[in-house]
Amino acid sequence: MPTIICQPRASPILLLCRSSLILRNTCKWRGSVPMVFSQTRLSSGPYSGAKQCSNVRAQKNEEDAAHAAASLADAGAPTIFDKIIRKEIPSTVVYEDEKVLAFRDINPQAPVHIVLIPKVRDGLTQLSKADERHKDILGHLLCMTAVIAKQEGIEDGYRVVINNGPSACQSVYHLHLHIIGGRQLKWPPG
Amino acid sequence: MPTIICQPRASPILLLCRSSLILRNTCKWRGSVPMVFSQTRLSSGPYSGAKQCSNVRAQKNEEDAAHAAASLADAGAPTIFDKIIRKEIPSTVVYEDEKVLAFRDINPQAPVHIVLIPKVRDGLTQLSKADERHKDILGHLLCMTAVIAKQEGIEDGYRVVINNGPSACQSVYHLHLHIIGGRQLKWPPG
Repeated sequence: MPTIICQPRASPILLLCRSSLILRNTCKWRGSVPMVFSQTRLSSGPYSGAKQCSNVRAQKNEEDAAHAAASLADAGAPTIFDKIIRKEIPSTVVYEDEKVLAFRDINPQAPVHIVLIPKVRDGLTQLSKADERHKDILGHLLCMTAVIAKQEGIEDGYRVVINNGPSACQSVYHLHLHIIGGRQLKWPPG
Repeated sequence: MPTIICQPRASPILLLCRSSLILRNTCKWRGSVPMVFSQTRLSSGPYSGAKQCSNVRAQKNEEDAAHAAASLADAGAPTIFDKIIRKEIPSTVVYEDEKVLAFRDINPQAPVHIVLIPKVRDGLTQLSKADERHKDILGHLLCMTAVIAKQEGIEDGYRVVINNGPSACQSVYHLHLHIIGGRQLKWPPG
């Protein structure tokens, strides 16, 4: 099963992206385990206006990563989430049942930022692939956001976000819901 | 059934908010029909950096409106969406079936911005109220986002957003999904 191999350059940049665990720039999807696994936050957080320049750079990287990831979407290749589901890559799991897994985003955009995924992708590389047979898991996913929000103490204020495709910054082609809360969120949502 | 009555002040401000049709500041939920129904966009759109000041003001208004709306949430009072469902208030419907209704947001945050709602609220003032009995409608709603995105020609790139509570800028207490696309969306999502 393809996983991740990193190819260091003169100045290797190893980035873990928004959707939690994308190794990019120096990484390609190949057939091995990560050589390096670390976290570099391009954005110093969305809260400080003084960090606008780095935020702009981070935004550009998010877009670039999303466009790069899209080229792999139709292949239906396994993603980093498969390894998280199998616990081959560590994550901070906050909820799990027989159908779904929820874990903390490694590059959180708010004090609480959780990624919720179906354990079986079943063709749901992205939300636009949904059809009748997916209604059960989609309903379960949304319902579980309420359980998780309560557990996290953010039931009074959180946002659920699903990115579909490169122009929405989707960078992992395994359907996932972002549950974001713990601060005042802005409008528009990106 | 309570709807909306407006009480003009010396300098009445009539705003239609993000979630499409909230009349606020000069309006109170009472028991009549709107005296005035117009659209004033505080934000000139999220695309221009030159309009940062007005965007900041708009953001503050969104937050204020959301906090004000929250005080009515637990009452389970009818919302503006009930009138839209009954076609007593006009909207540009883009999709409808026996369970859900989708219409264009009157204050769009992107070239395509649609609000999708269940026709029967059934206690779903907000997503955090979801439980087992809501799974069918929640699954149907998410599945229909794919149908609507395809119909709108944005299936390659769109974001689905659900706001829950004042700190997520929820301003109508009838569950609704925002389907946003047609431009490059940013990260973080608000």
